[in-house]
Amino acid sequence: MKNSKRKLIILGSGFASFSTLKGIDTDLYEVVVVSPRNHFIFTPLLPSTTVGTIEFRSIIEPIRSAKENITYYQAFCTGIDTAGKRIDCTGALDGNIFSLPYDTLVIGVGAVSNTFGIPGVERYGLFLKELSDARAIRQRIIENFERASTPNLPFEERRRLLHFVVVGGGPTGVEFAAELHDFMTEDLVDSYASVLPDVSITLFEAGDALLSSFDAALSEYTVRIFQRQKISVRLHAQVAAVEEKEILLKDGSRVPYGMMVWSTGNTQTSFVRSLPFEKDRGSRLITDEYFRVKGQSDLYSLGDCATIEGKVLPATSQVAQQEGYYLARSLNAVAKGRTAAPFIYHHRGMLAYIGSNRALADLPQVKGRGFSTWIFWRSAYLTKLVSWKNKVLVVFDWMKAFVFGRDASRF
Amino acid sequence: MKNSKRKLIILGSGFASFSTLKGIDTDLYEVVVVSPRNHFIFTPLLPSTTVGTIEFRSIIEPIRSAKENITYYQAFCTGIDTAGKRIDCTGALDGNIFSLPYDTLVIGVGAVSNTFGIPGVERYGLFLKELSDARAIRQRIIENFERASTPNLPFEERRRLLHFVVVGGGPTGVEFAAELHDFMTEDLVDSYASVLPDVSITLFEAGDALLSSFDAALSEYTVRIFQRQKISVRLHAQVAAVEEKEILLKDGSRVPYGMMVWSTGNTQTSFVRSLPFEKDRGSRLITDEYFRVKGQSDLYSLGDCATIEGKVLPATSQVAQQEGYYLARSLNAVAKGRTAAPFIYHHRGMLAYIGSNRALADLPQVKGRGFSTWIFWRSAYLTKLVSWKNKVLVVFDWMKAFVFGRDASRF
Repeated sequence: MKNSKRKLIILGSGFASFSTLKGIDTDLYEVVVVSPRNHFIFTPLLPSTTVGTIEFRSIIEPIRSAKENITYYQAFCTGIDTAGKRIDCTGALDGNIFSLPYDTLVIGVGAVSNTFGIPGVERYGLFLKELSDARAIRQRIIENFERASTPNLPFEERRRLLHFVVVGGGPTGVEFAAELHDFMTEDLVDSYASVLPDVSITLFEAGDALLSSFDAALSEYTVRIFQRQKISVRLHAQVAAVEEKEILLKDGSRVPYGMMVWSTGNTQTSFVRSLPFEKDRGSRLITDEYFRVKGQSDLYSLGDCATIEGKVLPATSQVAQQEGYYLARSLNAVAKGRTAAPFIYHHRGMLAYIGSNRALADLPQVKGRGFSTWIFWRSAYLTKLVSWKNKVLVVFDWMKAFVFGRDASRF
Repeated sequence: MKNSKRKLIILGSGFASFSTLKGIDTDLYEVVVVSPRNHFIFTPLLPSTTVGTIEFRSIIEPIRSAKENITYYQAFCTGIDTAGKRIDCTGALDGNIFSLPYDTLVIGVGAVSNTFGIPGVERYGLFLKELSDARAIRQRIIENFERASTPNLPFEERRRLLHFVVVGGGPTGVEFAAELHDFMTEDLVDSYASVLPDVSITLFEAGDALLSSFDAALSEYTVRIFQRQKISVRLHAQVAAVEEKEILLKDGSRVPYGMMVWSTGNTQTSFVRSLPFEKDRGSRLITDEYFRVKGQSDLYSLGDCATIEGKVLPATSQVAQQEGYYLARSLNAVAKGRTAAPFIYHHRGMLAYIGSNRALADLPQVKGRGFSTWIFWRSAYLTKLVSWKNKVLVVFDWMKAFVFGRDASRF
């Protein structure tokens, strides 16, 4: 009986792959997940973890316990042998090499942060894609506050250490700047009162608006709120290079900084670039409306590493999640000899937190902003969290931050 | 008014220093804390954090928010100028050098793990004194389970990766072995079912008993329970050297291992060793019964880095905490022109967790063991936790681990 099941390998553990995994019927498929990250992250709440509004563990779901009767390998896929129907893997922890057979392969490996080849970004910048990134940011914030508190420090050096820069005015950059502002005004204000007047936050955006995918009125509202919160917003500002203590802009000016978070969108992984399949200009794998990789059989791709031919969908968790659940249903149908209808994306709207208990909601029916929208933002994300465990933990984290404040220890 | 207050510098942020800080009257003293660690850790619950029974943040207390109107510097003290009444400091994060004046100085810098100069311990062993140690242990456990799950791994290598060794049969080593056992049998059993038969835990102790400071019957009970829990206890086992994958014992045998936690007691820091004051054979600063450093004025020392002349007190958190609270009361009295009575230690007893919801209690009036003692163990530690915040968080962590299990993600 067991051997009659088709071997399904899923590459990746982000929204697209994890949703496929959650939806797949393990009575129909023998499922193997291969990913260097052994947990799923609910990335919409990742900015909240940087300052401790939410704990790291509250927004993750271990792959091994996400579903029964699956196999998981903490490894990178390094190559696909479509003729022999095998994949090559390298252990993420020890570099051990092994290969696995598949009948059906799902490529949902996501994308990586795009530095546009700007010198110094990789070396001096911090990113915001993984929990380890969020932890590095949290530690750096506290480290800089502690360093700025050293006696006899020159004024200029203290100001530099306490200048927090965010590059990229998309939802992640905006939400991180907002959380940073809350952390400083609500929590660090007591512990670091003497240096707080020297703190500044700057958000650089190369385009002409923050949250350009949102309704224009909401985007302008965000700029106004940020100004009131003393977050300096600099539009049309392009970074030319990053040095250890200064950012060089294309207009020739130099900006001293203490921490820089880089959040300017994604680019493809070297693995996806190396695959010999048809791709679009952004190096994404081209698929049909069933997520079948163009010109290949038994090969599917979805999420940030793929694009449906003739359609343009944003690289959001909402899209990836819908794609994953669709693909699971579709594969379950295929195994039963049926065929699913093509994928259709249902846009439910966009949400963003902008600080001081205010949020934006850009929904198909309505545009909302302010405090009541923030309540909606929290409820909506709570509903979207994958497991009951995560829902309970996040609610407790919010209560904890409300009652006891956020923690400013560094360890 | 402000300038009439005496300048009190406290070095350290462990039980002794933190208790002094909590008890000191900031109307009487202008308080400065200098310590490379910006938080206090409730170390008796540190073994529980290694496997996620308790979260890291639940057992710490940031120094800056522990008390109002104090100054804190994240720095090492490197020298004391008793004639000029100043201390030299080096910033823990940036190496910046500065000096601070004092009227009264309290040295409570604690001790460091003792490797007895055994080759390889520092390089390959993990310790259990700080939260960063606990995190490193947690990550290594999961890493080894993931590596052991790689396909086609030789049997011997899998057994090696899953051999967890604890060196030192004191309370920390015993409690860590117990937590490790619980984690594996209660949580990893589902996620890593296929490799679980290859797991082993060994506890090496150089002496002839575990928990030698406890009542002999309780010590023997622990060995019996550990045997039932398949924790192999090896008494009279002395480590000669540690290599990357093998431990060499003095009897010439070689023991392959995947992770080794070293917990064999403490030795003095290089800072305390460098001080030109009178010390005992263990390099601890000798004080009188008021914690005044012998032959010095306005200089106090307590906790693991000090010893009262003619008295032998164990290096436990209980002793350090009582000393700290006493010293605060005593210094408050001195500032008011009064003198406190000499310090007297009140032994309240000892507790240890030994796994599977069983604990030991060695109290002056009664010796307890088993499940009901475990309930007592939890209640007692809850009472001892310093802040309400920590009490609430630890209770929630226990509930969380009970309902949802411990988390096995690595990030």
